[in-house]
Amino acid sequence: MTVSTLSPSYPYRQPADHVNNGFFGQDILSVRQFDREKLAYIFAVADEMRTLVRRFGSADLLSGKVLANLFYEPSTRTASSFMAAMLRLGGQVIPINEVRYSSVAKGESLPDTVRTLECYADVIVLRHPEVGSAQIAADYASKPVINAGDGIGEHPTQALLDLYTIAQEQERLDGLKVAMVGDLKYGRTVHSLTRLLCLYDTEFYFVSPAILRLPPDMLAEVRTRGHKAVEVEDIHEVIGEVDVLYVTRVQKERFADLTEYERVKDYYIIEPRLMAQAKPTAVLMHPFPRVGEIAYAVDRDPRAAYFRQMENGMFIRMALLAAVLGKA
Amino acid sequence: MTVSTLSPSYPYRQPADHVNNGFFGQDILSVRQFDREKLAYIFAVADEMRTLVRRFGSADLLSGKVLANLFYEPSTRTASSFMAAMLRLGGQVIPINEVRYSSVAKGESLPDTVRTLECYADVIVLRHPEVGSAQIAADYASKPVINAGDGIGEHPTQALLDLYTIAQEQERLDGLKVAMVGDLKYGRTVHSLTRLLCLYDTEFYFVSPAILRLPPDMLAEVRTRGHKAVEVEDIHEVIGEVDVLYVTRVQKERFADLTEYERVKDYYIIEPRLMAQAKPTAVLMHPFPRVGEIAYAVDRDPRAAYFRQMENGMFIRMALLAAVLGKA
Amino acid sequence: MTVSTLSPSYPYRQPADHVNNGFFGQDILSVRQFDREKLAYIFAVADEMRTLVRRFGSADLLSGKVLANLFYEPSTRTASSFMAAMLRLGGQVIPINEVRYSSVAKGESLPDTVRTLECYADVIVLRHPEVGSAQIAADYASKPVINAGDGIGEHPTQALLDLYTIAQEQERLDGLKVAMVGDLKYGRTVHSLTRLLCLYDTEFYFVSPAILRLPPDMLAEVRTRGHKAVEVEDIHEVIGEVDVLYVTRVQKERFADLTEYERVKDYYIIEPRLMAQAKPTAVLMHPFPRVGEIAYAVDRDPRAAYFRQMENGMFIRMALLAAVLGKA
Repeated sequence: MTVSTLSPSYPYRQPADHVNNGFFGQDILSVRQFDREKLAYIFAVADEMRTLVRRFGSADLLSGKVLANLFYEPSTRTASSFMAAMLRLGGQVIPINEVRYSSVAKGESLPDTVRTLECYADVIVLRHPEVGSAQIAADYASKPVINAGDGIGEHPTQALLDLYTIAQEQERLDGLKVAMVGDLKYGRTVHSLTRLLCLYDTEFYFVSPAILRLPPDMLAEVRTRGHKAVEVEDIHEVIGEVDVLYVTRVQKERFADLTEYERVKDYYIIEPRLMAQAKPTAVLMHPFPRVGEIAYAVDRDPRAAYFRQMENGMFIRMALLAAVLGKA
Repeated sequence: MTVSTLSPSYPYRQPADHVNNGFFGQDILSVRQFDREKLAYIFAVADEMRTLVRRFGSADLLSGKVLANLFYEPSTRTASSFMAAMLRLGGQVIPINEVRYSSVAKGESLPDTVRTLECYADVIVLRHPEVGSAQIAADYASKPVINAGDGIGEHPTQALLDLYTIAQEQERLDGLKVAMVGDLKYGRTVHSLTRLLCLYDTEFYFVSPAILRLPPDMLAEVRTRGHKAVEVEDIHEVIGEVDVLYVTRVQKERFADLTEYERVKDYYIIEPRLMAQAKPTAVLMHPFPRVGEIAYAVDRDPRAAYFRQMENGMFIRMALLAAVLGKA
Repeated sequence: MTVSTLSPSYPYRQPADHVNNGFFGQDILSVRQFDREKLAYIFAVADEMRTLVRRFGSADLLSGKVLANLFYEPSTRTASSFMAAMLRLGGQVIPINEVRYSSVAKGESLPDTVRTLECYADVIVLRHPEVGSAQIAADYASKPVINAGDGIGEHPTQALLDLYTIAQEQERLDGLKVAMVGDLKYGRTVHSLTRLLCLYDTEFYFVSPAILRLPPDMLAEVRTRGHKAVEVEDIHEVIGEVDVLYVTRVQKERFADLTEYERVKDYYIIEPRLMAQAKPTAVLMHPFPRVGEIAYAVDRDPRAAYFRQMENGMFIRMALLAAVLGKA
């Protein structure tokens, strides 16, 4: 394992000798910015946010601050989560969703739009269909930019909330067996979470159809960093072993050969019968939206963590907003 | 009359022996949930909201609370009214209007969307084109759901604001003669208001073209409950008798025979000449939007209550939000 | 010069003997409403707003007040600026952008929509594609209406922020040489700013292709009011003389003869090489969005004021909102 033994272990503690861990005024663009210490810090703040919301609903922490929630493509879940996060911190939000009719449509460049919005706002959340757009925005903006997904690039806050959910549910991040299930080739969330889990003592089980396997370079990287990484096609082979089941959708459109799709599709549908084979302490996660890959009947299973996962998203985003604005 | 003599009469009083009248944590899905006592309670709270807005603009009553304003079809009036209501109570709002591009469009089910939003919000207002959708949302959500219209189903807050307006304008709800005018067959607001008025000592005058008469079962129900109910085709026959004129639009598209439309259409257009025949104490209402069925010249008539009716909508929605969140 | 010698000169002072300068409860529809005294008042309040935002982010000045931000055509910049202005004053905003699907689309008139919104809100900001619409809205509304652009008509808050930026950058408004550059025929912002600058001791340089010259009646009016007004085709002729460069876009589509477009287009593109010929104290402005008429390399020039200009837009709108709501 290449993981530093000096890193704080879960339950994470807020390091006393680091003020704000260097987040103040910074952009959040990629999971690559995070090490164990920074993650422990953000997760500790997220815990505080959970307490705050449970007890008071909201706080005055970001009173007087304004977030520009700039979405160049629709994402109700992510946009609502950031908006709720800012509002519950006592801040305000300018939602900008109608980009098809905005000055963007008239030909304005992303740098100009971002520099316009930072005249009005204190922090910018950006969702954009093109890889690298968040970095471009950050290059031009003098205020913090948080990447809310840039195409097939990064979606760091999703990866953080995924990891935070594992930490919450399992009460540790080291020593876990994690199964990534479904579309591991194109699944942005799988790639980012895998990258973060490599910071911990993790055993990986990559469960996918042959045509949707994890990209070879990524698999090699995981193994180079000292992790056990097993590839299987049928979830039944590993369901009884793992602590975390992270499920993503297998899209029919990915298959050139539909008979192949028909052959494998049931391997990746989570039903109560399948969950009966999982460990009692396992946790079932999904980035949502789901379209049939987890049966509704599973929702009642206490191991189904996907709605808690969503709520964690709000806490993580509250923590990040407070951190980059110097209030965490 | 089947109306209980024990029910509070208008001016309504807040019953001392009922805390919150059982609204805390409840859904508002249908007018059928309401009896005279519950209506009196909500109207009393709405009165307080009017005072609050007049004096202070807003209150801190719902500070720390977040409303998810989920509109699957556009309705500027209803969405703005709920938003203003929440903001004037010191709460915050996540508006979700772009459903055609949201995760819904990607195939997410209403239950999943609702359970997602309740991770971020404390109460959900739902407008949806399908009958029964509000009930489905309420079945899955653990937080209160308020139905803001589900297709040809219910739109209970509209009926409540209509009834509240009658109470405000006439200073009583018993002993009134009410004319429902226009499209009584398809008019959702007419049906819901009629149902609520059946809780009071009301005489009904149903004024419509033959093809747009009140559904026979509804008419029968009104009569079975002991109310006088008269059907006429020409408003002139009753204009001088009634205390309330509730006008809705007669849509040309409803008529297979356009000569029939041309014959009757002027019966249902309210002009100053017609209002001259109405009682000096009558009140003229309309759920809006209007498209010619009430002339602009009538707006100056003090009996024209439709803009006061709209403002009442905000007070009623403030009352409901405060009630279901345990602050009324 | 016809400018009154009694008018306050810049640095503007808040006149002690005028309370609120008569803005309370008024509409803001046109630059023609403003004289030197009123401008000095609004600019003084805008200065206070800048201080307030720099120190505290926001204030409680409009706490309890609600703005209806009604946009019948998209304008991310203007809508966001008004929204930020209201939020930073402690008020709240109902954004209404989806007019293509709203009750408007169902045929509701502007007067009905405006009278509906004033049931919920305390002030209405209106953007509408038709000339005169703001006046119509104001005629029907009893609450203040602020014109955020009505077609080729007026966009008074843009003109105010432009003038305020000149005042901020040059620390005076009298005795300046101002070059208007680009499309002077159709440029609404040029016309409005020119009208306001006529209240001061200004020398005008109108720089445009022949087919996009300032309308003759406007040029005549400027000269009649005693101002020097020079028309040139090539910006190089005046670049070294002027204190203000106000640049707008020359749209290719305006030219019937594209060879003419090709001949002149480079006259109106601002590049570092051109700025090298400008006065060290000159200020370069643009109403944005830009599409190539100012090179990105110019952004680093300290004389490039267009992003400060945008921020000034927020301060001016804060000042106007506070003024019409009686809090300035």
